Formats: sequence, structure tokens, C-alpha cells
Amino acid sequence: MPQLLHHKLDPASRLVRLMFAEYGIEVELVDVAPWRRDPDFLEINPAATVPVMLDEPFPPVVGLLASIAHIEANFGPDAHIEALLPENGTQRNEVWRLIEWVILKLGPEVTSYLLEEKLIKRDLRSGAPEPATIRIAKANLAEHLAYFNWIFATRRWLAGDTLTLADFALAAHISILDYMGDIAWEKAGELKDWYARIKSRPAFRPLLTDRIVGMPASSTYADLDF
Amino acid sequence: MPQLLHHKLDPASRLVRLMFAEYGIEVELVDVAPWRRDPDFLEINPAATVPVMLDEPFPPVVGLLASIAHIEANFGPDAHIEALLPENGTQRNEVWRLIEWVILKLGPEVTSYLLEEKLIKRDLRSGAPEPATIRIAKANLAEHLAYFNWIFATRRWLAGDTLTLADFALAAHISILDYMGDIAWEKAGELKDWYARIKSRPAFRPLLTDRIVGMPASSTYADLDF
Repeated sequence: MPQLLHHKLDPASRLVRLMFAEYGIEVELVDVAPWRRDPDFLEINPAATVPVMLDEPFPPVVGLLASIAHIEANFGPDAHIEALLPENGTQRNEVWRLIEWVILKLGPEVTSYLLEEKLIKRDLRSGAPEPATIRIAKANLAEHLAYFNWIFATRRWLAGDTLTLADFALAAHISILDYMGDIAWEKAGELKDWYARIKSRPAFRPLLTDRIVGMPASSTYADLDF
Repeated sequence: MPQLLHHKLDPASRLVRLMFAEYGIEVELVDVAPWRRDPDFLEINPAATVPVMLDEPFPPVVGLLASIAHIEANFGPDAHIEALLPENGTQRNEVWRLIEWVILKLGPEVTSYLLEEKLIKRDLRSGAPEPATIRIAKANLAEHLAYFNWIFATRRWLAGDTLTLADFALAAHISILDYMGDIAWEKAGELKDWYARIKSRPAFRPLLTDRIVGMPASSTYADLDF
């Protein structure tokens, strides 16, 4: 069984966990706090990021993009499971466009800031959260949510008619922001309906039992009727 | 012929240009300054990023990851050209690991800051470069170069024995940093030998003729014997 070095509130790790779960592949989870820069971990991944997949006899599979490629190549779905990366080129391009939005815009402009202020500083005892930074991240979040709501006004899933990896990419971030209580669900519009559908999928359930010691989840986090 | 909406000093655009050139595919370049947020451009890409590929009859191909997937699927190399994404899974994972390093670490920690301070602020007339930001970006750059030199101590190309897309990803950034005069070549070690090899490839030549009005290239930029 492959091992996944991950952190419970790391969005890229969650994307990979969702992908494995949707394809029905079991994986053993190993908790890592990459920002602590443990030398043994740095030897595997000098970038000090998760996820890292250990899948003998292959060398470690390091990072999100390599993990996606590795899973597609080695654990790709049976014919009776819908693929998360569509065969059709135009649809696949749309999936990659939205994954890139999530990892190169939403991540750096929102999730990374909030994780740094609320989780990493606490874990490293390196100071109190900076209110100005949190304010900026939340203002950025509001703009991102407006864009995704604009998409969901005409689409059932993020990239079109079917669930794809783009949905899991976004849901990984939304679930972490929800854990920290940063999503104002009463103002969330169509995004809320979409997230309710995703949250109810069997692949998503294990994530809803994740807890960080000393950092309780918001009241909506594990609630399917939020 | 596909059109590429690009900026001459945008690293993701350069990666796509190098990929097209290495595969021997002609592409028509259309200059865009994405930070000016032109409404016609935003309608094609609300993320306000380049590259965007226009390749009729397909809808616009938006972003770096979609462009890579689209080129591989539609302009993949003939049997007599070496593929930039290796067939072998372990090698391909290593390529993706390093591309991710470049676009999720080197880019945000170095190139984006320097482009913002030196190019975008100037273009938008939004103030003078911030010396403290430039200093931090250059300190980050020194750490990245140390890592890449460590790799090049044992490898001819970034991901192993052959040139891959990872080399072009890194070279796109290095070439832009070199244009702005931010690479101290006298201290660059093995990276310099690697860059000299890349720079001499036919695929690279067109980039060396790029110029930004009012922002001259460094003396080393177009020099193959730098």
C-alpha cells in the first residue's frame, strides 16, 4: 500500500487524498509538519512541502504535480469509475486552468496566509496571528468566492457537467478554510450547494474526521447540513 | 498557426515558447501586459495571467498547465525528436517535481517580486522599486541557485541525463533574471555551464532577441560566451 506523507490541513495533500479515495485506492497516511524542516524529511524533499508519496519500488514521488501524474499512470480508474482528468482535450484544458487558479492564485493569496497565521505560527510558537494579514487574506477570499460563484451559476461542477480533479482542488482549500471558520456560509451562494454535494461524497468523509490538537474545527466543518 | 498571448518577460510564457520551439512548431506571438487588466483580455482569462493559447477550433487554452497538456496532446514530438516529458514514470515524476519547484517556489519567492518591482511598477507608473523587497528576492534567489548547483554537480540536465521540460522551466526564469541583471554569473558555478548549453540551443535563440522598451537587457543577456 502506498504511503502518503501529508499534513491534515495542507490543501495539496487533501487533493491527493481525495483523488486516491475517489479511485478507491487505499493509502497509509503519515503525518508531517513540513514547516518544522525535519532533516529526515528534507532529505526526501528539500522543498519542505507535502504531499510526498512513498510507493515502492518507485523512488519517492514528490509534490502535487508529480503525485497527480503518478496516480493517473499507476492507479488510474477502472472503466466503471469516472476519470477525474477527462479524456476530452477541451474539458481537460478547463480542468487544468482551474487547478492552476487554485494552486497559483487561491493558494498563495488566501490559504497560505491563513495557515501561516493561524496554524504554523502557533505550531512553531513564533508569534501571534497578524490581524492585518488575516484581513487581506479574507478580502482576497471574497473575490475568489465571487468568481467561483459566477462559474457555479451555470455549471453543476467546477469544470463542467461532471466532477473532476478541479472540484477536488477547490474543495481541498474550501474544506481547510471552513475548518478554520473562514467561510461565511450564509453569504456563500451557489458555492454552498456545490460544497454540500462534494462533502457528501464517500471520498470526502475521511477528511471530515481530521482534527488538529488544540485547534478545534468550526461548527460547520463536519456537518453535512451546514 | 496557433497564437500565443504572452509577455516577453513572463516566465510561464517563455516555458511555452521554448516547448513549441523545441518541438519545431511555429506559433504567432501576441504581446499582452496582463497586469493592465484589459477588459478584452480578462474576458478570455479572468485570472489575468499569460500564457493563453488561441488554437482554433479549440476554445482558448488558458494558463501554463493547460498549455503544457494541450501541446503534449496536439503538438507532441515526432519519433525523431526527444520528448520533453519522459515516458518513464520515475523520470517524469522528477520532471514534475522540479517544474513544481520552479513555478511554486522560485517564481513566487524570486521572479514575481523582481518583475513587480522592476517591470510592472514602471509600466503602471505606480511608484519606484522597493529596495527592501529586491534585497529579499535576491537573498531567496541565492538559496535557490545553491540548490540547483547542488543538483548540477551530479547531473548534466536538471532532471537527469536528458534535457526535459524542467530545464526549460528553470531556464525561462534564469533568462528573465539575467535580462534584469540579477544573476551574478561569476559566482554561478555549474549553473553557468548548464545555462550556456541551454542558451546555445536553436529553441532558445528567439528569446535572446526580446527587448523591452526603456528597459535594456544586461550585458550578458544575449551573449553566448558570457
